Amino acid sequence: MSSIEFYFDFSSPYGYFASEQIDKIAENHNRTVEWHPFLMGAVMKVTGRKPLVHIPMVDDYSDIDLHRCARLYGLEYKTPSTFPIATVAACRAFYWQLSQDKQLAKQLARKLFQAYFAEDRTISEPDVVMDVAESIGIDRILLGKALEDPDIKNKLREVTNSAVERKVFGSPFFFVDGEPFWGHDRMPHIQKWLETGGW
Amino acid sequence: MSSIEFYFDFSSPYGYFASEQIDKIAENHNRTVEWHPFLMGAVMKVTGRKPLVHIPMVDDYSDIDLHRCARLYGLEYKTPSTFPIATVAACRAFYWQLSQDKQLAKQLARKLFQAYFAEDRTISEPDVVMDVAESIGIDRILLGKALEDPDIKNKLREVTNSAVERKVFGSPFFFVDGEPFWGHDRMPHIQKWLETGGW
Repeated sequence: MSSIEFYFDFSSPYGYFASEQIDKIAENHNRTVEWHPFLMGAVMKVTGRKPLVHIPMVDDYSDIDLHRCARLYGLEYKTPSTFPIATVAACRAFYWQLSQDKQLAKQLARKLFQAYFAEDRTISEPDVVMDVAESIGIDRILLGKALEDPDIKNKLREVTNSAVERKVFGSPFFFVDGEPFWGHDRMPHIQKWLETGGW
Repeated sequence: MSSIEFYFDFSSPYGYFASEQIDKIAENHNRTVEWHPFLMGAVMKVTGRKPLVHIPMVDDYSDIDLHRCARLYGLEYKTPSTFPIATVAACRAFYWQLSQDKQLAKQLARKLFQAYFAEDRTISEPDVVMDVAESIGIDRILLGKALEDPDIKNKLREVTNSAVERKVFGSPFFFVDGEPFWGHDRMPHIQKWLETGGW
């Protein structure tokens, strides 16, 4: 059984919601999930799309929907003071940690999402990324070095290029046995897809 | 108990999916639904958004998702040869029929959606709208006149202006007791909202 592929940008609130749920959905069907944080900015250059908060009329609704979804899922959510933000440091931290310990990398990603969307901490700052990492036992000095490691920088570039090639135009975005699903609101479809083998 | 308000453009495939489901959801909670077809073009001028099929990368996915959703819901769906289309005639036909018989107006709307999205018929053409109307017993001659009736034209203008004022930026779009919900994929949330009285 192939892994579910989970693409997201750390600046994506619906990506945050997905990060709290997709592994449980996968586990219920004896699947694993590969997490692929990437830089949505690169994709938006191709699609010409803008973050929802920059679109007239959509901005207000978006805030209502995010709070309502968070309450439905039982997740903490605060509208971040700055949005969207650069997520290069968060992504690099993830990929370095992935090369050390896969489970801890996921835990770091979840903590980074929570720091940004539940605690309004500016995870665009390398120092904040390091604070979050340290709080779950990751070595701050080693991580600090890793953030400037050419291999790690390259890894993020590769994943982002591959996201563009695979037409991952949004966040969260999933592949289940090659089938693409966009949006946290397609998770019920993914669940059904796993249950039935597709339709 | 107030009615659910259902805004849609006849050119919206997710609006079509919603049109086949929202009345049943409402009935299960002793609610009725007021249907408000409007012209999305007017809204897109404000938001600057484009139909999904005009966005690179999103276009291919959109086709996959639409067919997959249709199969999930057990609905016929064919990618229309022309998309999007002008829906002025379809909207006017609806509002005229609404002034005559509310239930028949909904039936006409469902038939128009089916004609466009299941049978690939060009419902932008007044003649096609009249064919569809005639097939469910509506008087073709009277309808033909109504399509040019200034009051009916005005009604559509009013609904569209009111959609813009109420920040209805997409299709389908719903209000449940004043709470806005965008997208057919929020129908499960609407269901839960009706069950629980909101959260």
